[in-house]
Amino acid sequence: MSIENLLSEGIKATPPSFVRGILKAASDPSVISFAGGLPNPISFPQDELLTSMEHIVKTYGSNVFQYSITAGLPELRQYIADRYNRIFGLRLTIDNILITTGSQQALDLIGKVLLDKGDGVIVEKPTYLAAIQAFSMQQPQFYPVELTEKGMNPEQLKEALQNPVKFIYAIPDFQNPTGLTYSAENRKCIYEILKNHEVVLIEDDPYGELRFDGERLPYIGVGKLPNSILLGTFSKTVTPGMRTGFLISENEELLKNISIAKEASDLHTNIFSQYLIWDYLKNNDLDNHIAKIKELYKKQAHAMMAAMDQYFPSTVKYTKPHGGMFLWVTLPEGVSAMSLFPKALEKKVAFVPGDPFYIGSDNTNTMRLNYTNADCKTIEEGIHRLGELLKELSM
Amino acid sequence: MSIENLLSEGIKATPPSFVRGILKAASDPSVISFAGGLPNPISFPQDELLTSMEHIVKTYGSNVFQYSITAGLPELRQYIADRYNRIFGLRLTIDNILITTGSQQALDLIGKVLLDKGDGVIVEKPTYLAAIQAFSMQQPQFYPVELTEKGMNPEQLKEALQNPVKFIYAIPDFQNPTGLTYSAENRKCIYEILKNHEVVLIEDDPYGELRFDGERLPYIGVGKLPNSILLGTFSKTVTPGMRTGFLISENEELLKNISIAKEASDLHTNIFSQYLIWDYLKNNDLDNHIAKIKELYKKQAHAMMAAMDQYFPSTVKYTKPHGGMFLWVTLPEGVSAMSLFPKALEKKVAFVPGDPFYIGSDNTNTMRLNYTNADCKTIEEGIHRLGELLKELSM
Repeated sequence: MSIENLLSEGIKATPPSFVRGILKAASDPSVISFAGGLPNPISFPQDELLTSMEHIVKTYGSNVFQYSITAGLPELRQYIADRYNRIFGLRLTIDNILITTGSQQALDLIGKVLLDKGDGVIVEKPTYLAAIQAFSMQQPQFYPVELTEKGMNPEQLKEALQNPVKFIYAIPDFQNPTGLTYSAENRKCIYEILKNHEVVLIEDDPYGELRFDGERLPYIGVGKLPNSILLGTFSKTVTPGMRTGFLISENEELLKNISIAKEASDLHTNIFSQYLIWDYLKNNDLDNHIAKIKELYKKQAHAMMAAMDQYFPSTVKYTKPHGGMFLWVTLPEGVSAMSLFPKALEKKVAFVPGDPFYIGSDNTNTMRLNYTNADCKTIEEGIHRLGELLKELSM
Repeated sequence: MSIENLLSEGIKATPPSFVRGILKAASDPSVISFAGGLPNPISFPQDELLTSMEHIVKTYGSNVFQYSITAGLPELRQYIADRYNRIFGLRLTIDNILITTGSQQALDLIGKVLLDKGDGVIVEKPTYLAAIQAFSMQQPQFYPVELTEKGMNPEQLKEALQNPVKFIYAIPDFQNPTGLTYSAENRKCIYEILKNHEVVLIEDDPYGELRFDGERLPYIGVGKLPNSILLGTFSKTVTPGMRTGFLISENEELLKNISIAKEASDLHTNIFSQYLIWDYLKNNDLDNHIAKIKELYKKQAHAMMAAMDQYFPSTVKYTKPHGGMFLWVTLPEGVSAMSLFPKALEKKVAFVPGDPFYIGSDNTNTMRLNYTNADCKTIEEGIHRLGELLKELSM
C-alpha cells in the first residue's frame, strides 16, 4: 500500500530544504564550503555556558528539568524586553514576548495563525528559503517584491498589496540571502505604505546584532504599526544548537493566538536552555561578546570581497554587506548558477545556487556565499578556486 | 484595525489547552492539585545530568552548541533503536527514528503531513486533549471510538473506518486521560481490522516504560503494519524540560515527509539536549532509574485508590491503572464535573473535568486525576477533600 494517497496537500506543496540537501555534498573535508549558514564556533561562549549550567542546576534544581509555561521563562523575556527598549527606545513588556524553538518555529507559527490556502504573502525577491518552506505548508499565494540595494521596491509593494494579502515577510538587516540592508528612507517609505493597510508586517532580524559597518537603523513596524511582529534569536550571538529564538508583538490578540499555536506545536521551548541563556546573559557582557564576533565576521567578509576583486572576472557582481553572514553574487545574464554547482564541487568549493531563494525561478544567475564559517585564508583559497572556474567558462 | 479578519480558519478551530488554563488557578500553594501531568521531580537524575553536561562540553566542544541535522543525533537514534529491538524484538535501524521536540511536536508533524481540511481521524473517546489541539489546526473530521476497560471498541472502529480516514490515534498503554490499557486480545483484534485498510496507525506511548503492575504488551502496529508510527519520549523517564521525544516508523516515504515537515517547523531539535540525554543513557542504568520511578508511582497510585475507597461515595467509579500517571473518575450520571470544579477549588483541591478530552461533549460526569506529582500523604488529604465535596452533594 502506497503512503502517497494519504499525504496532505500541504506537505506535497512544501519543498525540502535545498541547502540541507547539498550540505552533505559539501561536508567532504577537502571541499571549501560557502554553502552553509553556520556561525563561527568561536562565537559560542563555551566556558561561560558551562559555568552557567553548573550554576542553574545548583540554584534552580528541578525547575530547569520540569515542564514549563508556553510563553517562556519570564526572566529571559524581561531581559529581551529591556534590551530592545534600551537599544531602540521601545516600551515592550514581557507580555509582548514569546520564546520560540528557534526563529524557524516563529515562521511556522505565523503561517499557522495567519494563512489559509490561497491567502497572499508578500516576500522579498529573493527571500530566505526556509521561510518559503515554512509558509508553503499552508499553500499560500506568494507575491514576490523586488529587493534592491535600498530595500523593498515601494511601487511593487503597493501593487502587491492590491491582492488579498495576510502578511509581508521582510528581513531588513543583512538579508538572507543577499546581505542587503534597507535604507532608513526605504523603511520610512514602507511604513507609510503599510500604515493604512490591514496587514501584518513581519520583520525577521536574526542578524541585526551583527552589524560591523555603520549604525543600526530603526525597525519599520515594532512600536509603530499595530499589526507588527519582530523576530529575534540567540542563534547568531550565543548558540544555535539550543534552538532559542523569540517573537515580539505588541498586538495582544495576535500574540495570544500565536501562543495557542505554539502550545499545540511543542507545549513550550526547552526550559533548561532558557534558564541557561538567561543566566549567561545576566553574568556576562553580551555587547562585549558580540563585539568580538563582529570583528571576526568583518575580517572574513572583507577577505571574501578582496578575494573576489582579485580572482573574479569583472563581469561578475556582488553585494557588499555591512553585517550578517552572507553576500550575493550575480553572474552574467544567462549563466545558470545551478549548472555551475557540480563543476564547483569538482574544484572542491561549494555555494548555494540562487534558485531556492526565489518563488518558482529556475536557473537564475545568482548564488549565495557564506563567510562566517571559514578563516580568511580558507576564504581566499575558496574564492580563488571559484574564480578559476568562472574564468575557465570565460565570463 | 482588528486582527480578527486576518486569522486563519485553522487557528480559529484550535482550542487553547484547558489544562494549561486551569493550572494557574491550581498553582495556589494551598491547593492540592491533581490537575497537571507533571512527573515527580524525583524522577529527574539531576546529578547524573550535570555530570553528563560537563562531559559533553569537554568532549564534543562546539558540536553541542552548533546547528545540527534534522533527523537527530545518530548516537541517540541508535540507542533508541537498540532499546526497542531488545525489549520488543523489532529490527529498527537509525533510519527509522526521527528525534522530535517532545512528543507534542510529533503530533503536530503528523497532522501537517497527513491531514487536509475535512480528512478523517479516529481517536479514542476520551483522548489526550493536546492531541485534539494539535490535529485541530488542520480542521479534520474526528471519529471518536469508545475506549473500554479492554481497549478500543472493535465494532465502533470498523464502523468509523467506513469513513475517509487518514489515521487512527491511539494510546494503548495507561492512556491519557483514563489510565486504561488495551488487552493483548484487543491489540490483536485491532491489528486484524487494520491490516486490510489503507490507513496510518499512530501508537503514542509516553508511559509504556512506567508499568508498575503486570507485564509489557506488544505494540499493535510497529514491526507489523507497514503504515505504522510509534511515538516515544524521554519526558517521563529522564526530563520533560528538555523537550526530547522521538518518532519511529519503518515506512521510509512517510518518515521522509515527516522529516521535511520537521525541517520546516524548527530545523532540528535542541542538539545539546540530545547529546546530554545520550551521554546520560550511555553512562547510567536507565532500567534501574526507571525501577525507582515505578516504585514511587505505584505507591502514589495505590495511595490514591485506597483514599478513594475510603472517602468517595460508592456511586463514584474509577479506573485502576497498571502504570502511567493518571486515573479516571466517573461520577453518577447527570453530574457535571465541570460545574464541580469551582467548588473543589474552594475546598483547595483541583482536577481536570473530562470535557476537554472529548470531541464536542460538554458537562460530562468524568474527571482526570494525576497521582505522580504529590506524595502519598498529600494525595490522601486531597482525595479526602474531594470526597467531602462529593458527599455534600449527596452522590
